[in-house]
Amino acid sequence: MQTILSPEIITALEAIVTPNYIFLDEETRAHYGHDETEDYSFPPSVVIKPGTVGEVSAIMKLANVYKIPVVPIGARTGLSGGALSIYGGIGLSMERFTNLEIDEKNLQAIMGPAVITQVLREAAFEKGLFYPPDPSSQGSCTIGGNVAENSGGARAVKYGVTKDYVLNLEVVLPNGDVIWTGANTLKNSTGYNLTQLMVGSEGTLGIITTIVMKLLPKNSHNILMLIPFFKSEQACQAVAEIFRAGIVPSALEFMERDAIDWGLKYLDNVNLDIKDEVQAHLLVEVDGNYPDVLFAEAEKIMAAVEHFDIDEILFADTEDQKNALWKLRRTVAEAVKSNSVYKEEDTVVPRYELPVLLAGIKTIGKKYGFHTVCYGHAGDGNLHVNIIKGDMTDENWKTEVPKGIREIFELTVSLKGTLSGEHGIGYVQKNYMDIAFGTTHLLLMKGIKQLFDPNNILNPGKILPDII
Amino acid sequence: MQTILSPEIITALEAIVTPNYIFLDEETRAHYGHDETEDYSFPPSVVIKPGTVGEVSAIMKLANVYKIPVVPIGARTGLSGGALSIYGGIGLSMERFTNLEIDEKNLQAIMGPAVITQVLREAAFEKGLFYPPDPSSQGSCTIGGNVAENSGGARAVKYGVTKDYVLNLEVVLPNGDVIWTGANTLKNSTGYNLTQLMVGSEGTLGIITTIVMKLLPKNSHNILMLIPFFKSEQACQAVAEIFRAGIVPSALEFMERDAIDWGLKYLDNVNLDIKDEVQAHLLVEVDGNYPDVLFAEAEKIMAAVEHFDIDEILFADTEDQKNALWKLRRTVAEAVKSNSVYKEEDTVVPRYELPVLLAGIKTIGKKYGFHTVCYGHAGDGNLHVNIIKGDMTDENWKTEVPKGIREIFELTVSLKGTLSGEHGIGYVQKNYMDIAFGTTHLLLMKGIKQLFDPNNILNPGKILPDII
Repeated sequence: MQTILSPEIITALEAIVTPNYIFLDEETRAHYGHDETEDYSFPPSVVIKPGTVGEVSAIMKLANVYKIPVVPIGARTGLSGGALSIYGGIGLSMERFTNLEIDEKNLQAIMGPAVITQVLREAAFEKGLFYPPDPSSQGSCTIGGNVAENSGGARAVKYGVTKDYVLNLEVVLPNGDVIWTGANTLKNSTGYNLTQLMVGSEGTLGIITTIVMKLLPKNSHNILMLIPFFKSEQACQAVAEIFRAGIVPSALEFMERDAIDWGLKYLDNVNLDIKDEVQAHLLVEVDGNYPDVLFAEAEKIMAAVEHFDIDEILFADTEDQKNALWKLRRTVAEAVKSNSVYKEEDTVVPRYELPVLLAGIKTIGKKYGFHTVCYGHAGDGNLHVNIIKGDMTDENWKTEVPKGIREIFELTVSLKGTLSGEHGIGYVQKNYMDIAFGTTHLLLMKGIKQLFDPNNILNPGKILPDII
Repeated sequence: MQTILSPEIITALEAIVTPNYIFLDEETRAHYGHDETEDYSFPPSVVIKPGTVGEVSAIMKLANVYKIPVVPIGARTGLSGGALSIYGGIGLSMERFTNLEIDEKNLQAIMGPAVITQVLREAAFEKGLFYPPDPSSQGSCTIGGNVAENSGGARAVKYGVTKDYVLNLEVVLPNGDVIWTGANTLKNSTGYNLTQLMVGSEGTLGIITTIVMKLLPKNSHNILMLIPFFKSEQACQAVAEIFRAGIVPSALEFMERDAIDWGLKYLDNVNLDIKDEVQAHLLVEVDGNYPDVLFAEAEKIMAAVEHFDIDEILFADTEDQKNALWKLRRTVAEAVKSNSVYKEEDTVVPRYELPVLLAGIKTIGKKYGFHTVCYGHAGDGNLHVNIIKGDMTDENWKTEVPKGIREIFELTVSLKGTLSGEHGIGYVQKNYMDIAFGTTHLLLMKGIKQLFDPNNILNPGKILPDII
């Protein structure tokens, strides 16, 4: 691979994209060299911001001939290092692909990958429509990144994840060819599902240039409640109980005490009076168009949790209170990050196994000497595990923590779960892939990569373990 | 490929599966040599009914060494010829894989591929749970076939198709290796999505031996109404209007007059009084747990359609009436089949384009001299087009109809739709694939097939066109 680009290649790139969208300066390269994954920094050799599919295609053709690594870059909010240019080369920022069309007649959105998730949500909402996936970073992450990582969010428990909304993708392949993966239809049984193969492939198989999503009619009402539990594991147990009561909440979030405390410390304008003995909270939302139904569902939820050891349930009465609770939930990752060096794992298990997972993580943490702060989308069985460096020695952080992470993933897989629910594997989790998959499986994945990208130029060194 | 099996191979097979599950007689082979696709008959050279994953694996290892075609066979209700042994070889009937477990704690079902779809639906229902996909053949088709073809059904409009429920698959690969494609989790961003690659791959990439599906809490109520339209195209137009009124019906079915008349003639015990001038019907269902909400939604639907030229809406008051209407809808295909030689196409377009598609199909039919009966899942933009031979000459049936079908598909694709919404491509549609996909795309599909099945032994001659 050519990781440092010759002047001839830069000249060839300038013939494709006007030079004011090509950046060689250190500051720009450094800026595009990191995402939200720990403190990694892998600057590309050059940052290019193409404006058309034709330009992306021409860049890929060139890169394929000269075997230059190309890393598609979105908003760099990723948590698995998917956008890091670990081998240098071309950092292909897709930020100019911001076109967005809401097709009200077909309840679809057609857009470029650089549309901010919240912008899509608001544009849909204005037309009476609803795009449910809402990653915590929705205010800054892009739809292209969401598709690449198959992002989830709080509403996934009722409405599914990004993959459940993608109907069709325009993709530039590593050799520069352009295809549409499917059709703009709700159903499709026409050949192998390349759309779903592309979703979650973390920019390793092709560069997404247009995305067609389905939308739903919007809901007009919701009820949000915060349930304090005196025992963390009971909060996890209550999750399954709520579903067994016949309720599908539109959000069902779990936060350990630490998570909420750190969040509260981080935010100035959110106050909550929490008893010292409270170990965890569930944040539960139901949504729909009929307030009476929502009250009835809220009552069912209360009945489902009342036999647990809980404190008084807080109902968010106003939009401001709702926003404050959501802000608190969404700030946890940032708050944890501001406190300490950390690593975040994205474990996911069948919902009922959540209490076992939580208890296991604590035991493993004790064994290897690290503290964890856990929170996440409990309704999906998706628990984010923040491993805090705190006052751990650098030596132990380097040697003990990876062992602990491996054990956490082994536990996850033994519970019929897997490594990542919504963050992707990217750079930081790839060498744990052997826990989830045997050699046969990994070789199939590698074969798919080779089929799409025989020269291994597109986001190399991601997803697949270094040794298969 | 070895299409006629030597005595040595039969002996080797008898060492894997006890001989009473191996059938060489003409009657059994003929029985397993057809599905519900037109009147095709392609008997396998031998029918084998393995009982364990180990047996399937051993059969595949043998077949891979001797390059014997293997066709996985379910309930043979398919409409695209996916289960036809077009090159002879081993017909691998999965009918002994009937194990079914409902995991109430995780709202999941774990089962073998031979579970009848309705059996799963009823087993879930008994536990207060709901498996929504309901192909018209639900009483006889199997979950394995549903996964292989990514089947839909009437409820797909609200609840999605088979692919939206598959969490994890145990698969025997063509070389005999066994993998699980994913995890038993609601979310998964861990490597390429082999689960979704397997769904809809029509038995060409692997043999599915266990299926893990997610389930929903069941609904307790529904309202079903039949809306008669004096103009077919207005019925199609009304479909989009209903969604734009903010309603997501649990079913939204379209039936042309011919479809309903043939259905009524075919069924003895269903009577409907329909005015001569009525050209089409919409069958609309809403479901949920709160009758008041359903009444409110039914009223919104009535308001959305009242400005069209419609006759009086019929509400099904009793369970018997509901069953009769559903029976009528589900019988249409059989009724058409009983009347004439026919071909069925499974066109799908963005919902709003349905009136354009319907009008286009009629024009194309006139041009090539054939009559069509159209019906299907209008809420999904999925229109089944039954092309009736009637008194057409054999010559025209052979030469003109394929031209007409090609034009219908070209129209479908020009409307951003595709060839098949829920029936699959299989044997009968494969040589139309060039309409939906360019060479680059088809070569990627071919590459995936070669990666999984380098000897092309697993269900050869399906999905991919004869010439790429």
